[in-house]
Amino acid sequence: MVRQIVLLRWREGISEEEKTEVALGLRSLEEKIEGVRAMKMGSDLRVRSDNFDFGISVDFDDKEGYLAYRKHPAHLEVVERLIGPAMAERAGLVFEC
Amino acid sequence: MVRQIVLLRWREGISEEEKTEVALGLRSLEEKIEGVRAMKMGSDLRVRSDNFDFGISVDFDDKEGYLAYRKHPAHLEVVERLIGPAMAERAGLVFEC
Repeated sequence: MVRQIVLLRWREGISEEEKTEVALGLRSLEEKIEGVRAMKMGSDLRVRSDNFDFGISVDFDDKEGYLAYRKHPAHLEVVERLIGPAMAERAGLVFEC
Repeated sequence: MVRQIVLLRWREGISEEEKTEVALGLRSLEEKIEGVRAMKMGSDLRVRSDNFDFGISVDFDDKEGYLAYRKHPAHLEVVERLIGPAMAERAGLVFEC
């Protein structure tokens, strides 16, 4: 299995509506992109002051599944239209497990 | 379920042995700490140049499970003795999913 993790810090002044749009946009990819095996996401529980604000964990069968997701038009649209304008910082990892 | 994610960038000049010690130290916590439900970890597949180097994803039943893990002496020992000296940057998130 290959897991992609993306952690985000929201840009200052972002609204709750915008955050919800990011989450819904990402969630819609689960149905639109065949290779997505599992998707978990959520906001930080604020148990550490230096944690990021929001995170997504997406599982694929293999690296090819991840690469197909990455270049899929529905994914690119969510990244460009929703995530890009909403974030101030990104931390990512793609690992085999 | 509550998932903790930690992404690390290794400090410059770290050896492969030190990286392996971090991974083995973390893996040992799965048996030592009762509330750990699942633990996945791995090195970045280098599909993006700005990704972090290494990541750990740990699942718990609930926030209390995570908090017990965080303050468990075996966990603190791995963080202080192995992870601290090995890392240059950390990105974390704890979320309900």
